[in-house]
Amino acid sequence: MTGARASGPTVVTGGAGAIGSMLVAALLARGLEVRVVDNLSAGKRAHLPGDGTAERLTLTVADLRTPGGVDPAVAGAASVWHLAANTDIRRGSADPSVDFEHGTLATFHLLESVRRHDVPEVRYASSSVVYGSARVLPTPETYGPLVPESLYGAAKLAGEGMCAAYAHTYGFRARLFRFANIIGPGMTHGILCDFFEKLRNDPTRLEILGDGKQSKSYLRTEDCVSGMLAVADRAEGRVEVFNLGTTDRITAREIGEKVVAAHGGRARIEFTGGERGWVGDVPQTFLAIDKVLALGWKPQYSSAGAVDRTIEEMVEARRCPP
Amino acid sequence: MTGARASGPTVVTGGAGAIGSMLVAALLARGLEVRVVDNLSAGKRAHLPGDGTAERLTLTVADLRTPGGVDPAVAGAASVWHLAANTDIRRGSADPSVDFEHGTLATFHLLESVRRHDVPEVRYASSSVVYGSARVLPTPETYGPLVPESLYGAAKLAGEGMCAAYAHTYGFRARLFRFANIIGPGMTHGILCDFFEKLRNDPTRLEILGDGKQSKSYLRTEDCVSGMLAVADRAEGRVEVFNLGTTDRITAREIGEKVVAAHGGRARIEFTGGERGWVGDVPQTFLAIDKVLALGWKPQYSSAGAVDRTIEEMVEARRCPP
Repeated sequence: MTGARASGPTVVTGGAGAIGSMLVAALLARGLEVRVVDNLSAGKRAHLPGDGTAERLTLTVADLRTPGGVDPAVAGAASVWHLAANTDIRRGSADPSVDFEHGTLATFHLLESVRRHDVPEVRYASSSVVYGSARVLPTPETYGPLVPESLYGAAKLAGEGMCAAYAHTYGFRARLFRFANIIGPGMTHGILCDFFEKLRNDPTRLEILGDGKQSKSYLRTEDCVSGMLAVADRAEGRVEVFNLGTTDRITAREIGEKVVAAHGGRARIEFTGGERGWVGDVPQTFLAIDKVLALGWKPQYSSAGAVDRTIEEMVEARRCPP
Repeated sequence: MTGARASGPTVVTGGAGAIGSMLVAALLARGLEVRVVDNLSAGKRAHLPGDGTAERLTLTVADLRTPGGVDPAVAGAASVWHLAANTDIRRGSADPSVDFEHGTLATFHLLESVRRHDVPEVRYASSSVVYGSARVLPTPETYGPLVPESLYGAAKLAGEGMCAAYAHTYGFRARLFRFANIIGPGMTHGILCDFFEKLRNDPTRLEILGDGKQSKSYLRTEDCVSGMLAVADRAEGRVEVFNLGTTDRITAREIGEKVVAAHGGRARIEFTGGERGWVGDVPQTFLAIDKVLALGWKPQYSSAGAVDRTIEEMVEARRCPP
């Protein structure tokens, strides 16, 4: 590798999103210069410190589907965090081009820019959905085969493979994060928003898709950010894959009961039936996080605690996202 | 799934290539109607039975980089074999767009066509390179994480993920084949062609890239085709991943010695040194094939036998490809 730099600005794609903006705040708090690249489709200026005008922060409104559009932001960077993606998994089933273009193609364009500008490290937000319906729970990073069941998952897996191949071919480092379900402020999709909206439309009943036995881990955004930073600080090796989640999980039914209780406890819960909530949903997910725990990191919130805290925020804000 | 058909033509992308054309011949021998789609960049009409004019065979010269170009061939098909790809792994390091466009993007366009035309089964030619430098040898299909080291490998992994996700989302079946190194007639790249060309240019010496200790499995094209057909006939389940290889492997040095012996034994062998032959090469590969053996299939040739047979053909034809 030529011209690699140990210090320099750090780039965050999707930096105006729910996870990205919290990462940006943490990076600024470390004294780093941060360049956010966001097309503001799901992200918002208002998520960013000082609405994007904070010191040492620049916002480039650009779409990664355009080749080279990210070049000015990437030039001279010491690292790139790639969080930009389609945020609505279900939308990808209706229109496969969404995840291909905002996921796979966008990641290719970004990595081409990283290669041209010789950035020494890329950190990529992948997802537990790359595992599909894993036969081993909790699922370790060494699990295979990877058979994603949604086009979102396929795009995440394609991104992982490209990050790994570029890192090996062009001599940079890659850190790949497989996220559990992330919940917290600013999230516009997911089970909590769905439930909150349903109760707002009809406070007497809460319909839960599937049989309610779907069981998953939920990681608070703060923990997701601290976990990624721990890996960035401490992991060695050219390409490293880390699951990020909690050591417990919680069912859709339990979440429904918590949401109903927070709304006064009067709604009755109904189930649509079947194992899966929707096409592409993976009903049982549980990541083994031993590898990241071994780095000395641990989440502040359990899955149940993360759900409780996020429900509190929603009720307080009287809307979703909180 | 609506409109699925149990019988109908079968489509082979890359059907005029070295592996594809042998598959096409086998499918025709089964009495099937075969539609070949090939851009004839590496494939040749001359590979096809009757130069592409055999009964029950049609050839569509089309490039999968163009959306929808494959639609007429895919309409009404009972299955699609997707073998088209960049055939030169090393070229992908020099220009990353090659594998992205001829691999990832091409597979996306093909799957979109499969979805639109409701084809019930896709069979996809992937590769052992999706494993990267696996820490477990022989490597089973359950190995993870998948960290490809070449852009070719990244494109193959992206294709696997898309096949799996489309199959789950739109209700068709997918069979994913992870090939060992395939050798046989019509191959324009690979270690045997390299060695043959080198000796033709200078019959006194054979330069081997790396230290010669690179060790891999080599599967004859006939065995590759019979293995894919066995899986297509016998595998169950919505998405199935199968390694295809042999139960032995052979070093680059041993192959060099065989090639030199076949050329009269006068050339001296020299090594460039280092573990890897070239950027993106995986020096040690060995697939566990227990899963496909359990279907009752086995390869006719060992790796050493496949190399011997292919060298014989090359010497007889006095050129590579034979």
